[in-house]
Amino acid sequence: MRIVDIRETAVPLKSKLANSSFDFSEMTTSVVALITDVVRDGAPVVGYAFNSTGRYACGAAMRARFIPRILTAPPSSLLDSSGDNFDPAQVLAVMQQREKIGGDAERSVAIGTIEVALWDAVAKIARQPLHRLLAERHNGGRISQSVFCYVGGGWYWPGQTLDDLKDEMRRHLDTGYTMVKMKVGGLPLDQDLRRLEVVLEVVGGGDRLAVDANGKFGRDEALAYAKALAPFGLRWFEEPCCPLDFALMAEIATHYAPPLATGENLYSTQDVVNLVRFGGWRAGHDIIQVDPPQASGIVQYARTVAMLEDNGWNRSALFPHGGNQMSLAIAAGFGLGGAESYPGVFGDFGGFADDARIENGRLSLSDRPGIGFEGQARLYAIMRELAA
Amino acid sequence: MRIVDIRETAVPLKSKLANSSFDFSEMTTSVVALITDVVRDGAPVVGYAFNSTGRYACGAAMRARFIPRILTAPPSSLLDSSGDNFDPAQVLAVMQQREKIGGDAERSVAIGTIEVALWDAVAKIARQPLHRLLAERHNGGRISQSVFCYVGGGWYWPGQTLDDLKDEMRRHLDTGYTMVKMKVGGLPLDQDLRRLEVVLEVVGGGDRLAVDANGKFGRDEALAYAKALAPFGLRWFEEPCCPLDFALMAEIATHYAPPLATGENLYSTQDVVNLVRFGGWRAGHDIIQVDPPQASGIVQYARTVAMLEDNGWNRSALFPHGGNQMSLAIAAGFGLGGAESYPGVFGDFGGFADDARIENGRLSLSDRPGIGFEGQARLYAIMRELAA
Repeated sequence: MRIVDIRETAVPLKSKLANSSFDFSEMTTSVVALITDVVRDGAPVVGYAFNSTGRYACGAAMRARFIPRILTAPPSSLLDSSGDNFDPAQVLAVMQQREKIGGDAERSVAIGTIEVALWDAVAKIARQPLHRLLAERHNGGRISQSVFCYVGGGWYWPGQTLDDLKDEMRRHLDTGYTMVKMKVGGLPLDQDLRRLEVVLEVVGGGDRLAVDANGKFGRDEALAYAKALAPFGLRWFEEPCCPLDFALMAEIATHYAPPLATGENLYSTQDVVNLVRFGGWRAGHDIIQVDPPQASGIVQYARTVAMLEDNGWNRSALFPHGGNQMSLAIAAGFGLGGAESYPGVFGDFGGFADDARIENGRLSLSDRPGIGFEGQARLYAIMRELAA
Repeated sequence: MRIVDIRETAVPLKSKLANSSFDFSEMTTSVVALITDVVRDGAPVVGYAFNSTGRYACGAAMRARFIPRILTAPPSSLLDSSGDNFDPAQVLAVMQQREKIGGDAERSVAIGTIEVALWDAVAKIARQPLHRLLAERHNGGRISQSVFCYVGGGWYWPGQTLDDLKDEMRRHLDTGYTMVKMKVGGLPLDQDLRRLEVVLEVVGGGDRLAVDANGKFGRDEALAYAKALAPFGLRWFEEPCCPLDFALMAEIATHYAPPLATGENLYSTQDVVNLVRFGGWRAGHDIIQVDPPQASGIVQYARTVAMLEDNGWNRSALFPHGGNQMSLAIAAGFGLGGAESYPGVFGDFGGFADDARIENGRLSLSDRPGIGFEGQARLYAIMRELAA
């Protein structure tokens, strides 16, 4: 039983989106196919993943370092103690050989994407959906039937009117979502507040709306926005400043009573330790949004979750970044607060299974073995070609 | 006046070295040649750099993102206000377009290496050694004639005896160095202390010896080493633990009176802010060792230096990591505490100009325009071929 090949290709996202800080016009993602010699339903099991959104494709590091380390490791060293399946923790350890400590972001996206593709294979070999396998291993066997999902929307685009923005949010609610997120920081504060107010008219209450500044603000602007936003009692205020400026985050937290959120730009468990230790993030109140395929994968995410629980955090505060089938399975499997959704955004890479239904804010899960990319026809066409 | 081409190639270091945490057997570095249309001495000016040591080659990101952004920018937008030379700050800003905040290590080595190659060209265009150009711009015109250098040595290798280690250290002193560094953490504490004691016999005093744990230790081991090492009054104890575990670093600092050192694994100014804010690092006492070509380059390094000075730090506490001609020029140009040296290590990439002389612990500087790679025959042969 062994991993026969691991293939990677870089695919452009072809997105015209922009947030307050940057646009996605050059953005690419690495699609990975991990091919095993295990046969299920008459064909070799292949695990798939992609490197989520916001960080560029990283195939060169995969091909130069992480794939050869896995393919040259003794196959038996990559199996779990039963010998019936692969052991993601062992594969992670093999990938981390000869890597210098620190600077995790230099390798965490490449490692994490391969590791999540391995989990897809592991779940398929176990003939289980990944969310069920994760629930058994990491959530006391509590199997979710659906996951709370909110829409990451409200992007800026040229020529957009307030009515356009209201229409977008109305569409999300009509689809079945109950909470939306919108960008802030791309316009002056007074204009951003006007955008916020019209969206609030549509969604009905601050607890159904989050805002996202994408780390743009320096101290003065962050505190000005915090002061202006606080009265709205929003679900959360996301990335008000540089995601590593823990001192400023702690200062903002003392001025902003409603929940804050961050984490998609933290790539190691140690960075999350620093957030809760120095960043003023409040257990039982604030939100943490690590993106597992970008932060060395699911084994490392389990370590981050365990560290947070040791520090008094509840899983309901965790919303993995990504808005894709991977973060959905992880949110369901670990029993987290919920997942993000990007309907109609990021081309073939956003969104969930074609037959997934959103109802009263909760997205249905499928029984497909693995992560469930096979239920996303256009994305699966890209993936299948890689394994052919 | 424009940048005509930027070329990159990955070169294996072919090093058999190992520290307590990892070996360099797979290590590569990216060599960069930045070709301009400016003619000096009858030939186009070419700037060179490589990505220092310890992080792998990163040419794919250069070719996909950073080089095209520079080559497609309007040439006039990359010039300084005089129009007579390139402006590294502008070129840095162009490279950072469409890059998401945080996760600096994902791009800082690629960006920094190109940026340092640009500085080599800028100094050659100005017909000055880089250290002199930097002294004028960043150190009030105080030109150094030489730089304090210590040897980063004392590596572990199979079959090594204590006599081998003493011989190595004696060679360094005989060459003209007055301070050496050795690895710790690769053996049990009692054996490491024995190594330390024999080296101390050779070098004569703790102020002439530093030790480096390469971030290996967890809390218990770090505190045990701190307790055991403190009586020796060493020059510094480097990377006692994970370089991002600021809470543990602060705890170690309360138990270890002599100087501590870290920084080669911090890739952003914000990480260094966190070190001095939360890591317990003591201004006027401890050491910071950021590696400029790995941390987005010299413009960003100047911002880090300015931030540290604002926080009460003196430049004498700064020793850039690297042990190469780039960190030497930067240490000289900014008037820092000194530089590292790796004689006979890291193949063609360690060491300084072939005609450089070390005397009483200080390395002589040359008048060659630019960084001075032209004085390192074997390294320059690799670089020149890239520009041919």
